[in-house]
Amino acid sequence: MEKLFVIKAGGNILDDAAMLQSFLEKFAAIDAKKILVHGGGKIATTIGTQMGIKPNYINGRRITDAATIDLVTMVYGGLINKQLVAKLQQLHCNAIGLTGADANCIPAVKRPVKEIDYGFVGDISSDALKINNWQLLLDNGMVPVVAPLTHDGNGQILNTNADTIASALAVALSKMYDTRLIYCFEKKGVLENVDDENSVIHLIDKNKYKQLLHDNKLADGILPKIENAFNAIDNGVHEVLIGDGNDLLQNCTQQVKGTLFK
Amino acid sequence: MEKLFVIKAGGNILDDAAMLQSFLEKFAAIDAKKILVHGGGKIATTIGTQMGIKPNYINGRRITDAATIDLVTMVYGGLINKQLVAKLQQLHCNAIGLTGADANCIPAVKRPVKEIDYGFVGDISSDALKINNWQLLLDNGMVPVVAPLTHDGNGQILNTNADTIASALAVALSKMYDTRLIYCFEKKGVLENVDDENSVIHLIDKNKYKQLLHDNKLADGILPKIENAFNAIDNGVHEVLIGDGNDLLQNCTQQVKGTLFK
Repeated sequence: MEKLFVIKAGGNILDDAAMLQSFLEKFAAIDAKKILVHGGGKIATTIGTQMGIKPNYINGRRITDAATIDLVTMVYGGLINKQLVAKLQQLHCNAIGLTGADANCIPAVKRPVKEIDYGFVGDISSDALKINNWQLLLDNGMVPVVAPLTHDGNGQILNTNADTIASALAVALSKMYDTRLIYCFEKKGVLENVDDENSVIHLIDKNKYKQLLHDNKLADGILPKIENAFNAIDNGVHEVLIGDGNDLLQNCTQQVKGTLFK
Repeated sequence: MEKLFVIKAGGNILDDAAMLQSFLEKFAAIDAKKILVHGGGKIATTIGTQMGIKPNYINGRRITDAATIDLVTMVYGGLINKQLVAKLQQLHCNAIGLTGADANCIPAVKRPVKEIDYGFVGDISSDALKINNWQLLLDNGMVPVVAPLTHDGNGQILNTNADTIASALAVALSKMYDTRLIYCFEKKGVLENVDDENSVIHLIDKNKYKQLLHDNKLADGILPKIENAFNAIDNGVHEVLIGDGNDLLQNCTQQVKGTLFK
């Protein structure tokens, strides 16, 4: 099977112009099929404030109300997505910007209301993804750049976590491609010692994971990411890599830095 | 050659929810290859005002400054484009939203500064359009929904008139398809008597056009549209139709209303 890289770029990369440019140059240079999934960054909050849209929280959870879904549709699907596409085109990377509504490529279900009504938030499953459309674009040399937005099939755009989209895409496409999922975040990888940035654990398999759990060495913040990584691997993704964006994309066809899960 | 409809929807359709829904239902029902090009509508001005972005005019011409190009990238490329895509998906029309940056499908050149510096405005030529990408999407059952945005290939998004995009696309694609270009605007067609909405001229060929010019029957506002129509026809477009959106798309595979140029 041919290699495919599904790469999630977090807000810290989007918010720093120099870091973003360096990241995009390395992304453009990857000589393989690839998908970029981007998050939101601080710009949505800045523009929301200018427009008088106040963040709406219930029990500490951010709610996507009607004003907020329009805001993120503009900022994630328009401003951020199209600026990334234009910058990648400059780097001769044939980027095409997508939300889950485009070509119905990420159908979602509005999150059912239980204790909290999250508003216009979409839950997705990798089974529902239309892999034909993804394959058509990938096999014709296009590089999808995906905003963290989905749709319900009834005309409503929905807000969906970018990590979740990256994972669902990697799982669905691992049926067709030898898929590596790469999460770029603000640390250099999973740390053996949370106070030492250089104590990156370079390989975590299930035995190592059990041992780390047993030794109580994992910080709370990293646990969901690790669970997410093994969930992807259990569902067909070949490898998951977590670490600093600029480190990871340097020669990402070999692994040199960050934490590899397999 | 297979039929292709390139349809431009103006602001009056986008600004009225009921009219838009009716228009999209008729668009979705067209049983042929098709492209929708949309303009801006009033929402960009409303959001710009909320954000404190003042329209910038020099000698009566609107200038696209840095704040304005970000605004229209958000509103045209994000909010309007993705809402149209989601609504068309609901109608089982496999819409995919595009700007000219996506897949480099409409390369442009920043308008050279002469008497006026128009700012981030893109001029396009139908010769430069990458028809392979359009063909790939169209021949795989996708329906491009195009925002009035292009790019310069150097990372900069540019503002481009939607009428011009529709015309350039129709001309370029007329090499591959039997193309009809449809301009939906606020009148029922070209009027024989500008004060009588029902005096629509249903067919204008070059002889009729010369006669109308000679009789001085054409209002100033309609002249650029007519010149545009004949320019498209002289460059390979099979037919151009101008009139009210909801009239035109009803059975648009036959012409029943509006003004046909051929």
